[in-house]
Amino acid sequence: MRRPLPAGFLQRLEDIVGGAFVIADAERLLPYGADETPNLRPSLPDVVVRPGSADEAADVVRACAEAKVFITPRGAGTGKSGGCVPIHGGVVLALDRLTRIVDIDQADGTCNVEPGVILETLQQAVADRGMFYPPDPASLASCTLGGNVAENAGGPRALKYGVTSSYVLGLDLVLPTGERLRTGKRTTKGVAGYDLTSLVVGSEGTLAVVTGITLKLLPSPRFVQTALAVFPSSEAAVLGVNAIFGAGVLPRTLEYLDRASIDAVRAMSPPYRFPAGAGAALLVETDGESEAGTLEALSRALEACADAGATDTLLATDSKKQREIWATRRMLSEATKRIKGRKVSEDIVVPRSKIPEMVARTGALGDKHDLLTCSFGHAGDGNLHTQILFDSDEDLPRVDALLDELFRVVLELGGTITGEHGVGISKKPWLPLELSDEVIALSLRLKHAFDPAGILNPGKVFPEKLALRAAKRDQTT
Amino acid sequence: MRRPLPAGFLQRLEDIVGGAFVIADAERLLPYGADETPNLRPSLPDVVVRPGSADEAADVVRACAEAKVFITPRGAGTGKSGGCVPIHGGVVLALDRLTRIVDIDQADGTCNVEPGVILETLQQAVADRGMFYPPDPASLASCTLGGNVAENAGGPRALKYGVTSSYVLGLDLVLPTGERLRTGKRTTKGVAGYDLTSLVVGSEGTLAVVTGITLKLLPSPRFVQTALAVFPSSEAAVLGVNAIFGAGVLPRTLEYLDRASIDAVRAMSPPYRFPAGAGAALLVETDGESEAGTLEALSRALEACADAGATDTLLATDSKKQREIWATRRMLSEATKRIKGRKVSEDIVVPRSKIPEMVARTGALGDKHDLLTCSFGHAGDGNLHTQILFDSDEDLPRVDALLDELFRVVLELGGTITGEHGVGISKKPWLPLELSDEVIALSLRLKHAFDPAGILNPGKVFPEKLALRAAKRDQTT
Repeated sequence: MRRPLPAGFLQRLEDIVGGAFVIADAERLLPYGADETPNLRPSLPDVVVRPGSADEAADVVRACAEAKVFITPRGAGTGKSGGCVPIHGGVVLALDRLTRIVDIDQADGTCNVEPGVILETLQQAVADRGMFYPPDPASLASCTLGGNVAENAGGPRALKYGVTSSYVLGLDLVLPTGERLRTGKRTTKGVAGYDLTSLVVGSEGTLAVVTGITLKLLPSPRFVQTALAVFPSSEAAVLGVNAIFGAGVLPRTLEYLDRASIDAVRAMSPPYRFPAGAGAALLVETDGESEAGTLEALSRALEACADAGATDTLLATDSKKQREIWATRRMLSEATKRIKGRKVSEDIVVPRSKIPEMVARTGALGDKHDLLTCSFGHAGDGNLHTQILFDSDEDLPRVDALLDELFRVVLELGGTITGEHGVGISKKPWLPLELSDEVIALSLRLKHAFDPAGILNPGKVFPEKLALRAAKRDQTT
Repeated sequence: MRRPLPAGFLQRLEDIVGGAFVIADAERLLPYGADETPNLRPSLPDVVVRPGSADEAADVVRACAEAKVFITPRGAGTGKSGGCVPIHGGVVLALDRLTRIVDIDQADGTCNVEPGVILETLQQAVADRGMFYPPDPASLASCTLGGNVAENAGGPRALKYGVTSSYVLGLDLVLPTGERLRTGKRTTKGVAGYDLTSLVVGSEGTLAVVTGITLKLLPSPRFVQTALAVFPSSEAAVLGVNAIFGAGVLPRTLEYLDRASIDAVRAMSPPYRFPAGAGAALLVETDGESEAGTLEALSRALEACADAGATDTLLATDSKKQREIWATRRMLSEATKRIKGRKVSEDIVVPRSKIPEMVARTGALGDKHDLLTCSFGHAGDGNLHTQILFDSDEDLPRVDALLDELFRVVLELGGTITGEHGVGISKKPWLPLELSDEVIALSLRLKHAFDPAGILNPGKVFPEKLALRAAKRDQTT
């Protein structure tokens, strides 16, 4: 479905952004053909354009709209489902030069940023003013807010504080028709008209190009307390998750590690050493406006863990210990990859009460397909980053067979195939298992209302056959 | 724009829901011609249908779709912008018989309800299980969850806990084409496909009929502390609002009352007696998982108020005092109405830092148009329920002139014309001041994707001229 660029098109792009910011050299295009999705076939764009302002971005979109050239927007390329990979070629619209924090308004609790701002940069800037922007995907040191908006990014703190969509008040958009508009509001409340903002958040760059973002900020919680509870088994640990909620505690984060994950991390000599024989662990954090209250909530959570069978609980008594625990947690992704050399990292969600069954059935699927699996993740949300470990291309058909069964189990248990990574390319085949034909048909009608020519991020989210069928119907009605 | 019902249509409705639940008698139609919007001209439907199940509701919608009869969905009729008033006649689809709480799942922190469940009934049912459903519009004892979803209802606790949309995980919908679908998820996290759920929440019954709602629940906060800070003037009180956030406290609620509101309440001999000479007041609540922490946060908030000029602070030391303070707060709406006999109650929002200017300019507009005004509301969100008081129809042109200027000031200050009541009929004329032509055009394209025949809740939200223009364009392309 690639289309050749029309004659003179590169020149037109250079006229808009300047020659230095149009990349068409094959070697320099390479990094733009992939993101951080494992086992995804790279796909190069015809050209990368790096606008230096929202106006330039809008002009690029308009040029593409007029020439019917495909546009794939890109932030930092840290996505995990292939959302920014230009599978049908055309233009990659890299928004990495739009890095201005326009303002941070302490009194109003809001800020305005451009989409290329790195998440951690913003978090630091607002923290310096006593404010707090909660979303914290693992890629926070490199991912951009535009990418966070596209994927509706989450992270451990989503448990208490919600995901990106809870913080996006308004957006500056360029529609794939070239039209520019401002959705939403600059206040934390407001219900005038349809919630276009929430519709665009999480639409994986398929509805509009985001050139400006208004975010809600919270006052920084004054105290954060961190603890680790070690369990003899996965079963006991997942009981611990439900026991914590049963005790009426809403932790800031509640992360789960199974035995294989712990063993994998242990091999990397992490700063925090798990006790020998640890079968699973929960990392629990509480936060709040008083030290006593934060500690009291954490103590209640740890008591609930002890009642559920925790053999050991460790309270991080200083910030050094806190950092050690989190550094250990952050080793998980790399550590589990090292076990076999390669892996697929999934992003499933099941209702909290179904975590024990999900963990057990994942293990059974691993046995059935002769593949190692392990699970860690945001247990408080039921969001598990299930890892399927393998070492060669020969394993890939078995990996795919396992994945297919895994997603079916997830849906049988009332869950979803993606908690925070998005559908992109990598989960497209399974989307129709989760969403009904009617939901997909309605979604494609909405896509058409934003992008009648179908040029924005083509081939993403919805299986192509369904999209083509809808496009045909649109043409004939 | 009324259309006569086709022959045999009433019989068709009776066949679906039974004769007892089809109302076509003029006198019995009366209550369905209005909601709680002040000064709105009533408009009767041709018929009211009260389905007894989601299936029946879907069949009614299908019958209307086939016969191209207008449908206006209705919950408890407690809306404040005319959203459920059938201004073009046709069918009122009353969902008041769909009152089942299908399940409350403590372990998963979710519940499933039908749209006719009264908000307070659900709140009590989940509280009995140690859970918490935060949204709390003033009508909570009579409004329905379906209405809350339609209007994206808020309330005082929205400050800390967000509005209805923060809690709606998934919806069972009947589209105005008769199609049924399920949007969203049953887990607290999930990003598969577009966020149709958030688009429907707050769409004021214009996109789809809601027949089932999946809600997220929180663990109940164990402690709530309530206090009142009395200020010599409105200016001092609004400085207090910003001082509280500056102190890093995020209260559960932060309600503002100006001098005229306090005087009005005083005339009703409320359980809590404001000190003489009170010029304004803030009602502050904190909540949390420990008593010490909750008290500490509240103390810091009150210290901030004292620094901002509060002359008196009162901590409600027991639940009786808490109830007295809230009972006094809830008298505001009635008390301010009694001053002149009639009133318009507005629902504007400005950025928090702009509250002082908004309050001052509202007073000036009152002087200019020779009308009494007062303001109270959810100051933490910048959401003010500005009251315009008058006593006869003769005042209405001046009220309208004041409103028009008021909304322009709101927008000039970066606010929105509606924080939680919706646009409905009553704010339609001003919507184009807030939303650009491009936003409205895109919204109407989305409306068309849901409701190609334009039969669902016609005449709401978007000014008719714009809707007609868009419909014409749709027909010619």
